[in-house]
Amino acid sequence: MISLQINRGSNLALYRQISEHVKTEISNGRLPANTQLPTVRALAKMLGVTRLTVQNAYSELRADGWVEATVGRGTFVSPSVQPYRLEPTVGQYLTPDNAINDMMQINQVVGVRSMAMARPDTTLFPVEPFWRSMEKIRFLDKDLFGYGSVQGDIQLRFEIVRLLEDWGLTAVSPDDLLITSGVMQGIALVIQVLAKSGEKIVIDEPSYIGVLSIIKAQGLNPIKIQIGHDGPNLDHLETIFKQEKPKIYYTIPNFHNPTGISFSLEKRKAILELANRYEVMIVEDDIYGRLAYDEEPLPSIKQFDTQSRVIYLNGFSKMLMPGIRVGFIVMVPTLKADLLALRRAFDLCGPPFLQRALAEFLRENGFKPHIRKIRPIYKERRDTLLQALQAEMPPSVRWTIPKGGFCNWVSMPRQFAPGELYRLALQRGFAFTPGEAYDINRPQEEHFRLCFGGLTSIGIQATIKQLAQLIRSGSQSSSWLPIV
Amino acid sequence: MISLQINRGSNLALYRQISEHVKTEISNGRLPANTQLPTVRALAKMLGVTRLTVQNAYSELRADGWVEATVGRGTFVSPSVQPYRLEPTVGQYLTPDNAINDMMQINQVVGVRSMAMARPDTTLFPVEPFWRSMEKIRFLDKDLFGYGSVQGDIQLRFEIVRLLEDWGLTAVSPDDLLITSGVMQGIALVIQVLAKSGEKIVIDEPSYIGVLSIIKAQGLNPIKIQIGHDGPNLDHLETIFKQEKPKIYYTIPNFHNPTGISFSLEKRKAILELANRYEVMIVEDDIYGRLAYDEEPLPSIKQFDTQSRVIYLNGFSKMLMPGIRVGFIVMVPTLKADLLALRRAFDLCGPPFLQRALAEFLRENGFKPHIRKIRPIYKERRDTLLQALQAEMPPSVRWTIPKGGFCNWVSMPRQFAPGELYRLALQRGFAFTPGEAYDINRPQEEHFRLCFGGLTSIGIQATIKQLAQLIRSGSQSSSWLPIV
Repeated sequence: MISLQINRGSNLALYRQISEHVKTEISNGRLPANTQLPTVRALAKMLGVTRLTVQNAYSELRADGWVEATVGRGTFVSPSVQPYRLEPTVGQYLTPDNAINDMMQINQVVGVRSMAMARPDTTLFPVEPFWRSMEKIRFLDKDLFGYGSVQGDIQLRFEIVRLLEDWGLTAVSPDDLLITSGVMQGIALVIQVLAKSGEKIVIDEPSYIGVLSIIKAQGLNPIKIQIGHDGPNLDHLETIFKQEKPKIYYTIPNFHNPTGISFSLEKRKAILELANRYEVMIVEDDIYGRLAYDEEPLPSIKQFDTQSRVIYLNGFSKMLMPGIRVGFIVMVPTLKADLLALRRAFDLCGPPFLQRALAEFLRENGFKPHIRKIRPIYKERRDTLLQALQAEMPPSVRWTIPKGGFCNWVSMPRQFAPGELYRLALQRGFAFTPGEAYDINRPQEEHFRLCFGGLTSIGIQATIKQLAQLIRSGSQSSSWLPIV
Repeated sequence: MISLQINRGSNLALYRQISEHVKTEISNGRLPANTQLPTVRALAKMLGVTRLTVQNAYSELRADGWVEATVGRGTFVSPSVQPYRLEPTVGQYLTPDNAINDMMQINQVVGVRSMAMARPDTTLFPVEPFWRSMEKIRFLDKDLFGYGSVQGDIQLRFEIVRLLEDWGLTAVSPDDLLITSGVMQGIALVIQVLAKSGEKIVIDEPSYIGVLSIIKAQGLNPIKIQIGHDGPNLDHLETIFKQEKPKIYYTIPNFHNPTGISFSLEKRKAILELANRYEVMIVEDDIYGRLAYDEEPLPSIKQFDTQSRVIYLNGFSKMLMPGIRVGFIVMVPTLKADLLALRRAFDLCGPPFLQRALAEFLRENGFKPHIRKIRPIYKERRDTLLQALQAEMPPSVRWTIPKGGFCNWVSMPRQFAPGELYRLALQRGFAFTPGEAYDINRPQEEHFRLCFGGLTSIGIQATIKQLAQLIRSGSQSSSWLPIV
């Protein structure tokens, strides 16, 4: 029989609390496929809530595919929930490519609580105001369904300039901007323009999985630098810049993916100085920059750039919603022609209709209220995660304290064979990103990334509790030792 | 004063005839910026049509930005029409990159009759039914604004399989398909997976400009084969396959871009046989295949493929509208993992919302009625073009007879300095694609592409008349001779 508790002090609506608890029970296998749920009347009585509250919870579960309702028979856990069928798809996740693939697949499987993907919560997407923006431009111009400008919709570029001014980047003109298909395309374009096959690129260890895919696809030679709680070690970075003569340093100074840390102001300035001295281009990915939960983010490295040394990338996948596929590059003059030529050779242009709708959304000042709405929600999830880690994890486990973004990085002495903890988690109906996906060469340690953007506090608590149990049991039973 | 004739026998609506004539007069400079147009009443009386007809014509001209209306003052040619200001943008169009750039810019300048871009007519876009499809999925699932599947929306892949069955490709499963951002991205992905920098790719001379950009961006070595009225010379192709050992032959057997020709059935089969014998992969771009005006298109080369030798590419940019940015690859099993990995490294995924809306449009059988509607319209334009060429051009000028698509290829003995004819045309308010953009090494000849999809018959006739005048005057006055 279903057992769940609701909390009237929470700022999560009662119906969401119910649906989240049911999801947790389904994903951990306590409510298997085809199990009958209590009637609306019975559950409402049991919990002391109105029937409408339970109806809303069941509606959401139906809409998300977790349960099915048959008139006259009742509500049942969907036969398609499949936490236990995931294992075969993750047999080979030890490359960045497979890891991304895996995350995106898990994302589409009903019945898994996923902390694997650094993505915003679907239920917080500003779909309604965005739809109103689409309706406003509906009769504007059929050309919005024709070929667009390679550089991207001019009105969108104007609106992004306004945003950038707000963020302290005051010297950008619409002509400096190239709209891309997500930040991912921005990174791919910039890296291909700056470095040829075999040339060197410095990346953080660990770094964004997507950039590992790009490096592999373009045949580049990655040089890794470990990062601490406030950025890379500067002496180490200087040695690399000096000895390896890399073309690029790609990094994420704000709410870093996957570690969640942020670079100190001093390190931002020092990195730029080193880049200027050794003539290394900095590719600054600021995709999480506006998702700050404690204080406003520090100035971007680009703000100090006087020598066109920094290429600044950002986009709307985390701040608004990834499905519109809009990122942008703040180009430097010397690379503009090459970047536009390469974008033409990649895919010509993006969908002008979505770009203009986003311009309209921004013009109507849809951005700030959305950020004001989502920040406290993600902040609460971040807080819940840190509290749960503190409460549940054994002392050997350490983690970062993210002040924004979606990522938290956990480290511990190795106690499972590579991938084993991940497999055990999937068997129990939840997921995270295993450290192996990041290609880290530290066999004595075990790492993983926990993304707290996509789950509510209820889901986060349940997940961390299970994860801690796995780790505690592993430290008692596991006989695996690394062979160094 | 404006002078125009209307034709009650034409299947072009009277108001469109009026607006097209006015556009022609504006683009050829006879109605300069800020000229006042006749009042609705006066023009209606002069032409013997209703005032509503003239009002509709003026509305369309206003919507497209060609004229502006001020209450109480009248209707004026827009101050922003700028045919005479185009020249500076085309100083350097002698590379494929610049040519694409130029075409896309001209596309967005009001006041030019452009036959430069192989694109469908904006006014024929199925925007209304597509919008209904978007509305149907509006409340379906917020996940459609989240990250999509790398391979593309599964429902869209199912619908494309249904289309392919109709087209004779009966053995394709949804799992063989990769949805791309236009066919352009499909070509870029396939070529990068099949060939490394420095390796050889066979392309037609002339070939699609976009593929020249891709070859340059990826550092490949192009080998060119001239094509005749029914495809490449087979002996020549065999010699190239044998001696040069290329990885790929990229071609467009149906309604070839830029020449408009189609390969004979015998040549299709023979090309596949040679590709099998010499182990060359064929990349078959069929983007114009459904736009057949005389008879159904011949079977694709892919239909005869028994050895996974052919990668078939298609998309909806010409058949429906390019702004949805949907193309697709029919993958072969050995390349599937590499293509998906590279797509992840390019831009992760396309916009799931637009993909699902297109799936809905196809599911509701929106495709066939649209094709039935547009084919006779484009056929009439093709016929008009061929008649106008026959009537106006001097005997030294030769052209292809396209049985479908948007492209017509014109050749003549060289009589202008490279680019000169193009510059003269722009000065007179019309555009085509100069042969120089195709990087053809035949200095004694002059070539250009005329795209008849985007102009009505009125615009085509006026353009060909002016173009023929330019050529006739050039052959009398020009003293330019090629230095070989």
